[in-house]
Amino acid sequence: MTLSARLKKDAYPVWEKIFHTPFVVELYKGTLPEEKFKFYVKHDYNYLIGSIKNFSILASKADTAENTQLLTEIAFEEATTEFAGYKEYLKKLEIPLNEVKQTEPTFIETSYVSFLHSTSLMKSFAEGITAVLPCYWSYSEIAKFHKNKLQNNPNKLYREWASLYLEEDYLEVVRKIMNIVDHIPSDFHYHKLKKIFLQASKYELLFWKAAYNLEEWHV
Amino acid sequence: MTLSARLKKDAYPVWEKIFHTPFVVELYKGTLPEEKFKFYVKHDYNYLIGSIKNFSILASKADTAENTQLLTEIAFEEATTEFAGYKEYLKKLEIPLNEVKQTEPTFIETSYVSFLHSTSLMKSFAEGITAVLPCYWSYSEIAKFHKNKLQNNPNKLYREWASLYLEEDYLEVVRKIMNIVDHIPSDFHYHKLKKIFLQASKYELLFWKAAYNLEEWHV
Amino acid sequence: MTLSARLKKDAYPVWEKIFHTPFVVELYKGTLPEEKFKFYVKHDYNYLIGSIKNFSILASKADTAENTQLLTEIAFEEATTEFAGYKEYLKKLEIPLNEVKQTEPTFIETSYVSFLHSTSLMKSFAEGITAVLPCYWSYSEIAKFHKNKLQNNPNKLYREWASLYLEEDYLEVVRKIMNIVDHIPSDFHYHKLKKIFLQASKYELLFWKAAYNLEEWHV
Amino acid sequence: MTLSARLKKDAYPVWEKIFHTPFVVELYKGTLPEEKFKFYVKHDYNYLIGSIKNFSILASKADTAENTQLLTEIAFEEATTEFAGYKEYLKKLEIPLNEVKQTEPTFIETSYVSFLHSTSLMKSFAEGITAVLPCYWSYSEIAKFHKNKLQNNPNKLYREWASLYLEEDYLEVVRKIMNIVDHIPSDFHYHKLKKIFLQASKYELLFWKAAYNLEEWHV
Repeated sequence: MTLSARLKKDAYPVWEKIFHTPFVVELYKGTLPEEKFKFYVKHDYNYLIGSIKNFSILASKADTAENTQLLTEIAFEEATTEFAGYKEYLKKLEIPLNEVKQTEPTFIETSYVSFLHSTSLMKSFAEGITAVLPCYWSYSEIAKFHKNKLQNNPNKLYREWASLYLEEDYLEVVRKIMNIVDHIPSDFHYHKLKKIFLQASKYELLFWKAAYNLEEWHV
Repeated sequence: MTLSARLKKDAYPVWEKIFHTPFVVELYKGTLPEEKFKFYVKHDYNYLIGSIKNFSILASKADTAENTQLLTEIAFEEATTEFAGYKEYLKKLEIPLNEVKQTEPTFIETSYVSFLHSTSLMKSFAEGITAVLPCYWSYSEIAKFHKNKLQNNPNKLYREWASLYLEEDYLEVVRKIMNIVDHIPSDFHYHKLKKIFLQASKYELLFWKAAYNLEEWHV
Repeated sequence: MTLSARLKKDAYPVWEKIFHTPFVVELYKGTLPEEKFKFYVKHDYNYLIGSIKNFSILASKADTAENTQLLTEIAFEEATTEFAGYKEYLKKLEIPLNEVKQTEPTFIETSYVSFLHSTSLMKSFAEGITAVLPCYWSYSEIAKFHKNKLQNNPNKLYREWASLYLEEDYLEVVRKIMNIVDHIPSDFHYHKLKKIFLQASKYELLFWKAAYNLEEWHV
Repeated sequence: MTLSARLKKDAYPVWEKIFHTPFVVELYKGTLPEEKFKFYVKHDYNYLIGSIKNFSILASKADTAENTQLLTEIAFEEATTEFAGYKEYLKKLEIPLNEVKQTEPTFIETSYVSFLHSTSLMKSFAEGITAVLPCYWSYSEIAKFHKNKLQNNPNKLYREWASLYLEEDYLEVVRKIMNIVDHIPSDFHYHKLKKIFLQASKYELLFWKAAYNLEEWHV
């Protein structure tokens, strides 16, 4: 079994909850209140910037020139193609970019992005790259899991958004990250990677829950 | 008004909630179920280690030799005196250190410590030092606010724990951190510091709430 | 005067020495012993990887989303176009990439790259971006200064290499970095930037000198 | 053989050069021109601050709570006892602290400190702690090697300075660092540690040479 397959297997109880979390299910069915989707998209901005920064940190810490190159490529893709796609959704949702930029990051965003950054900066490259895998991979697994709901999904915007994660371009990025993880030397302590992978998976789940509840800082 | 006074004023609505959160009130009254206190103490270990690491990062980024020296002193104090005091409480609560070391950090701990580390590592020294102030300062303000409850507090352990934050030694550390904050150059953008100070204050509040609810990762 | 113009003016005594250092003069004239050029190119590999990593660190620390995007772009450009161009030179010089990868970094390379990385990681974004400017900018200024020597330069390889730094693509990168520097808030202490800019300029000069002397670690 | 013993053995050709470098020999004999010693002491300030910062970074990256505690202790010792001792020498040499603070770091200082910081920040904890060992350890080995010269050394200041590195307090710090290195897991790639250890040893040698030549930035 590859390292990534083993990690997924160990985190599967959390991933199953992700598949069945109301935000995800209703999005794929098309019954998600648009207000919730808007909230999610609006707050994805800070996550996106945080994610570009995180891939940049990982590029700077990569153990081989090839991984550095690959990670600058992912960072750049995120900063251009993915960012452009993001702006498209903003337009379709009639949310001005400026409003988005001034949106304060929520509690779960601040926490998740801080977790990614501090893992990349303070722990090994192996742990840093493991931390980003659940986000990318779970999005494609969610899409696979709920794919056949899309045909009957009456909301064009949701259908478009969801099908993005079934596209070859997206899957290619997932495979690249997975491939780096699968090449972590086999003598690396598995329990450390498992801990990080589980934490990141839980952040994913909590991110969806918070979006559904329109949670900012539940203080 | 000093910078720290201004920050406290702006975060006061959050601090008031901290003062009145059930964990804090019941601890000072002596009615807090011991199970909750144990949960809190057990999980404070990871926060304490994370905090020592954070002061070390700040020492490495300090803008003057004096601040570097001061921050290595605080890191060392935490790693020795405060750590020794912590172990005392473990003994009194009959929690073996080994059990504590193997305790997985909770969601709020992981998030708060990650927030402190990534702020210190990725932002300016001014923002990093501002992020640690709410923790230290609010503990002494909580103690001041609830001080007169302590006389009628029937739980010796809670009384001892709480009075620590009224002691001169503790207040001295708070003043040292506050003093560094108060010397941030006046041309530094206040809104950046306010944002960090508010976020850290909210993490404090959420930390207390999570402890009261014995929350690990509410997934 | 723009900030970058002021920095260049203050570092000009060092830059003049760079213009007149034997390696540079003989390269543009075409009289540089090929052995020296090969040494330089071979050792440029570690600098190039170090530089990609440095732009990645800067991308992660940038103060605006625009600067993060711009810096991931530069990192990516370096990791692709510039890297491809570099490999071309290796082929022309008949140096196998594998040999280059196994070349131990020299003293000056290790020192200069460490200086760039630690500046970017430990100091402000403003200081980090200022540290990379002398490398990029001085290469284009060297090319401008010695441009008319190129016509009589008998060495095709040197001519090709040198004219690269007169091309619009290259100048565009220089302008992008310069533009970020020129937007450093005017209340930022100039003497800090000047110190960094001067140090980086001196590293440039010492880099050329060490290449001319085929210096590895002069122990 | 312990890991540290193996590293020392592999770096011994460099260490032998350190033992016989003019600065060291003349210092122990007492024939070193005082101007050179003053230059060295004056410039040691920036190295000392850089070293405190480096131990702080290492404390933040340590893999165990025990190592974090130990490293905050070393950082604190450097920032207090060692710093106080340093100020004593300044007084004896009649160099005002203020003059020292305004001294620009030399080329070799800037490079060595940057190397330590970037190794600690960008590489593994194992590599970071290995990078600091040559400095501490070689000072005690120099002292052992030249010990019997001290009796006939006519310069009281040099005798005092040199005998410091024979004292139990100093040797204790060396042993602590060595002990962390000796506990690096045996599956860690030795060649990575050897590379770092050799580089740091060469920086030590170049530091002594530069001091002897009163080198600032040989531009």
